[in-house]
Amino acid sequence: MPESSTAVVAIIMGSDSDWPKIKPAAAALEEFGVPYEVRVMSAHRTPALVQQYSTMAAARGLKVLLAAAGGAAHLAGVIAAHTTLPVIGIPVATELAGGLDSLLSMVQMPGDVPVATVAVGGGGPRNAGLFAVEILALSNPSLQERLKEFKHRLVEKVSEKDAALQAQLGK
Amino acid sequence: MPESSTAVVAIIMGSDSDWPKIKPAAAALEEFGVPYEVRVMSAHRTPALVQQYSTMAAARGLKVLLAAAGGAAHLAGVIAAHTTLPVIGIPVATELAGGLDSLLSMVQMPGDVPVATVAVGGGGPRNAGLFAVEILALSNPSLQERLKEFKHRLVEKVSEKDAALQAQLGK
Amino acid sequence: MPESSTAVVAIIMGSDSDWPKIKPAAAALEEFGVPYEVRVMSAHRTPALVQQYSTMAAARGLKVLLAAAGGAAHLAGVIAAHTTLPVIGIPVATELAGGLDSLLSMVQMPGDVPVATVAVGGGGPRNAGLFAVEILALSNPSLQERLKEFKHRLVEKVSEKDAALQAQLGK
Amino acid sequence: MPESSTAVVAIIMGSDSDWPKIKPAAAALEEFGVPYEVRVMSAHRTPALVQQYSTMAAARGLKVLLAAAGGAAHLAGVIAAHTTLPVIGIPVATELAGGLDSLLSMVQMPGDVPVATVAVGGGGPRNAGLFAVEILALSNPSLQERLKEFKHRLVEKVSEKDAALQAQLGK
Amino acid sequence: MPESSTAVVAIIMGSDSDWPKIKPAAAALEEFGVPYEVRVMSAHRTPALVQQYSTMAAARGLKVLLAAAGGAAHLAGVIAAHTTLPVIGIPVATELAGGLDSLLSMVQMPGDVPVATVAVGGGGPRNAGLFAVEILALSNPSLQERLKEFKHRLVEKVSEKDAALQAQLGK
Amino acid sequence: MPESSTAVVAIIMGSDSDWPKIKPAAAALEEFGVPYEVRVMSAHRTPALVQQYSTMAAARGLKVLLAAAGGAAHLAGVIAAHTTLPVIGIPVATELAGGLDSLLSMVQMPGDVPVATVAVGGGGPRNAGLFAVEILALSNPSLQERLKEFKHRLVEKVSEKDAALQAQLGK
Amino acid sequence: MPESSTAVVAIIMGSDSDWPKIKPAAAALEEFGVPYEVRVMSAHRTPALVQQYSTMAAARGLKVLLAAAGGAAHLAGVIAAHTTLPVIGIPVATELAGGLDSLLSMVQMPGDVPVATVAVGGGGPRNAGLFAVEILALSNPSLQERLKEFKHRLVEKVSEKDAALQAQLGK
Amino acid sequence: MPESSTAVVAIIMGSDSDWPKIKPAAAALEEFGVPYEVRVMSAHRTPALVQQYSTMAAARGLKVLLAAAGGAAHLAGVIAAHTTLPVIGIPVATELAGGLDSLLSMVQMPGDVPVATVAVGGGGPRNAGLFAVEILALSNPSLQERLKEFKHRLVEKVSEKDAALQAQLGK
Repeated sequence: MPESSTAVVAIIMGSDSDWPKIKPAAAALEEFGVPYEVRVMSAHRTPALVQQYSTMAAARGLKVLLAAAGGAAHLAGVIAAHTTLPVIGIPVATELAGGLDSLLSMVQMPGDVPVATVAVGGGGPRNAGLFAVEILALSNPSLQERLKEFKHRLVEKVSEKDAALQAQLGK
Repeated sequence: MPESSTAVVAIIMGSDSDWPKIKPAAAALEEFGVPYEVRVMSAHRTPALVQQYSTMAAARGLKVLLAAAGGAAHLAGVIAAHTTLPVIGIPVATELAGGLDSLLSMVQMPGDVPVATVAVGGGGPRNAGLFAVEILALSNPSLQERLKEFKHRLVEKVSEKDAALQAQLGK
Repeated sequence: MPESSTAVVAIIMGSDSDWPKIKPAAAALEEFGVPYEVRVMSAHRTPALVQQYSTMAAARGLKVLLAAAGGAAHLAGVIAAHTTLPVIGIPVATELAGGLDSLLSMVQMPGDVPVATVAVGGGGPRNAGLFAVEILALSNPSLQERLKEFKHRLVEKVSEKDAALQAQLGK
Repeated sequence: MPESSTAVVAIIMGSDSDWPKIKPAAAALEEFGVPYEVRVMSAHRTPALVQQYSTMAAARGLKVLLAAAGGAAHLAGVIAAHTTLPVIGIPVATELAGGLDSLLSMVQMPGDVPVATVAVGGGGPRNAGLFAVEILALSNPSLQERLKEFKHRLVEKVSEKDAALQAQLGK
Repeated sequence: MPESSTAVVAIIMGSDSDWPKIKPAAAALEEFGVPYEVRVMSAHRTPALVQQYSTMAAARGLKVLLAAAGGAAHLAGVIAAHTTLPVIGIPVATELAGGLDSLLSMVQMPGDVPVATVAVGGGGPRNAGLFAVEILALSNPSLQERLKEFKHRLVEKVSEKDAALQAQLGK
Repeated sequence: MPESSTAVVAIIMGSDSDWPKIKPAAAALEEFGVPYEVRVMSAHRTPALVQQYSTMAAARGLKVLLAAAGGAAHLAGVIAAHTTLPVIGIPVATELAGGLDSLLSMVQMPGDVPVATVAVGGGGPRNAGLFAVEILALSNPSLQERLKEFKHRLVEKVSEKDAALQAQLGK
Repeated sequence: MPESSTAVVAIIMGSDSDWPKIKPAAAALEEFGVPYEVRVMSAHRTPALVQQYSTMAAARGLKVLLAAAGGAAHLAGVIAAHTTLPVIGIPVATELAGGLDSLLSMVQMPGDVPVATVAVGGGGPRNAGLFAVEILALSNPSLQERLKEFKHRLVEKVSEKDAALQAQLGK
Repeated sequence: MPESSTAVVAIIMGSDSDWPKIKPAAAALEEFGVPYEVRVMSAHRTPALVQQYSTMAAARGLKVLLAAAGGAAHLAGVIAAHTTLPVIGIPVATELAGGLDSLLSMVQMPGDVPVATVAVGGGGPRNAGLFAVEILALSNPSLQERLKEFKHRLVEKVSEKDAALQAQLGK
């Protein structure tokens, strides 16, 4: 369900080559049945498109915007410049500094234009999706319910891994 | 209006000495008339309190939790472990690494337990407040309206500064 | 002998995937015949379990707690919040910054809640085990004796390597 | 001569508070009699203005654009997205990381949209002005001549400082 | 067309082993039909050659000098010491710090001797070539025209990638 | 009680100028009535003294050694080379890198020779003292009791600060 | 000629596993016919051996000591503590920080106990050998002559590479 | 005795403003009666002078060259390009990164052109002077003798500081 007239979350990437890394954000949204769309657009190569898209996002019914980029990762900031929707930055790893450059480029936004950022790599993209779910759940009780169940299942998963390791070591 | 039974946002600090730095988050909430409460509690010194507070936060009517800490800044992550509300981390600057340690300690959360993080210092704390407003505005049209006005005023403010500099240099 | 009612050291990991890296800590304990247990629990996914486990650790007879985690490595700090036993942090390497993030997240604890940290990777996990042995040896003369022998053997091992290299280069 | 219909260089700042640091860029242009204008505009607060200004810059007769910003320093990149004029980034120091964040945010531009960056602090802003002069001198023989004289004077200045130190130490 | 009596841009590398990384700079120049030459010379191993080459560069008709080096990347700075042509530094990645050392070594030039620097890796080398084209286009209307077309094509390319991803996800 | 034949903890500094920063370690020991001694000796300037002192430490009745140093902070490692007592490193802040150099120099010990390290600055030195108390308390029930009381008082202190801030903001 | 009663340079490694990386130091010495010895000894595992070796080095006829180590790279500093011979540190790359930790641990020596350090990886080990040759050449005219020839050959080598690239590109 | 026809060591600075920081290098040379000269010359502003000076240094009787610079600290490398004398780099602290940029810019020299580097700040400049003394002492027995005495006095100085602290704490 990547693109939809009913999408409430958008995942926007500066480069389509980032998609494999960013997919977990989409997967998290699907787990919770949140309709989303995925777009490739570049703050530097298609600035007019980014401007137009960001400006219209709220009117189109989008609620949360996820922006993934690496290096001089301007995408999230440029989107945030054109919308009052919450923008979540997903910094993409780079060769120069493992993504620390992307992270700093996204997170060190000036006052008045917020972007909230998740981890580089690891659970970061997935958490961006989950953070969007948490936001949407504030006005969606059934989503809130599913988040609570999700949190309970986390305990079970870790307990199973713990038990498996005990079993393995106990032999 | 720092503490209130009707608070929808909480600002939680690991140390009361961080308050002067974190105040801009509260100021942003006040600008938009968002009721909030401010609490000092420590993930390391008062873990039971943090657990209890985080677990009860949603039931008490809180919608968004802002957590400010420095160094091994565990507060936001520990809060996120106990709630499905959106948790926004505000990393506080340190002497060791200017707050880069706080930022990484907050932002590099494992999958399934999201914390979204704003800038260290500068406009970071203010933006944490504004980000909370953006979230709340998703289900509050009048807040949404005020955010749009706010965004328009940003243009005016910068234009005034530009004009002032032109005038100064033109002499 | 990974889990035992008589365990005096616990090795706690945030993720079972870290076990191959953390094994040398267990190996060091086995070399010295120190009974230990290994557990997987997460400060973020199973916070209640971590709290309960840490709170009961001393009463169960545990003497030293080793906590391994990466990224926003909160595990050691959260454990330390609930116990007065010595907690040794083992920072696990990450892609973002080679583990520097994990290290800072563990070591930069606030006053009053100590965590002592060993190296990221390399000899770090093994040294965490040895450090636990050194602590236990303070009230265990036979362990102290074995530590001294161990230290003597270090000299021999290096001397053998030196001799082997001399032989190789001398040809 | 800060703003002029005949300006060929523009110095654009994200914040008027950066002016004292960026002034040496203007001073360098004045030394060489290059007409310039100074503007305050923000990639995040006044994105439409930045877009309009950048898009029209070449048509207005501007030849080189200098963009100064700090933190998530997007200004130079956003300007470069809208023009084919050479854009020179001047990274401004920050508290978080001394300006390393600003530098990386400016310099790590993706392919196809170049920004060339000078030093954070020190001689950086002055060199941005001189670099613009070097570009303009390519099609301006008298400017080229003055650059050569300038380079000769550098030798004299250093020699004078050397002589002064010799004299001081010789006593 | 790598070496030519009519070359207007020079690509100078400290080591021939960097050529595969630096090639995109040459490719960008070829795309725009800009005659260039490629040279290997070292600030440390062939300082006299670098001095002679830099000193004569303008007289030989060169307009822009691109200098690529890694580690203690002195090449660009040493070239800049001997010419008033614009010098663009291309920092080459290293094992120590991913090229951050090369970048800082190039970009932190003292006042009066400018070097403008592009990204380490990624689009950096290509952008160095494009930046040279932007400079040359200031006095070459047909080149300016081609740059504008190039900028339009960027939009198309990203749009195609976006469409391709939509198609793929829509299945 | 800084130096004593009955000292069980030693605080060893590479430079007497570090004493003001390291004092909190001593203060923590005094709070718990742990006899300690303070020594200035340098791994680089008085290596024989360090060797002799470390080698004899256990025989003299010392149980835990705290070693504070900055920069190429070799003191803790050199001490650990000569003893099987637990050695806790206290990295001292430097101008170069805020103490990150000291931290890495202490914590990245090779396998077989453990040093456990606390935070640079902040609560680090105090925590080194408390960590020593935690170790000693393993075989000292009254000390264990006092540690538990100490932990309870932490809660009270934070609660008081929280209450004070509430009061201040409530006005 | 790795170990010799007539050795004037010693290459000392903390671990024999570093030999492949350090070999270029030996190769440089062999190129210039400088007799050397190679030893494996550890500042942490065989401190007495390091002390004895360093203390006796000058009396045995050694002139320059090269010390290679990684991580908490104490070897060079500990050797320097026991000798007045010039000690050159060769920092070995690590996983944590690419060797930046090793470099800082070696180079940030306190006053009065100098260690001079070469590059991590790349040409670092080779340069350590060449630096020793430069020192020895101060009192050895024939060595000085060979160094000059070596420097001339550098020019030829680079020129050949330049010519080869020209030829390749000219096709 | 800063400049002398009999100088055997040269202290060369990129900027006379660095002199207060570099003075300890000169003081160390004076302590040992080593004749030296001090020069200000810049790799970037007076490249011809640096080349000429470095090329003639050995013929003038200089034995060791100390080069101090900050930022894109090319001075030591450029000097080393023109001489076979040992060149010792003294990295000067900067605002950007505390001097880490200067250090990396000096120490990461390519193979075949060695520069050995001392600490940024702290004891670095003094140690550069002492390192030169250690080199000169290799062919100067009386200097060697004085170095040994110096090393003995180090022990006394630290012992006095230790005693003073004991006395202070013992009260």
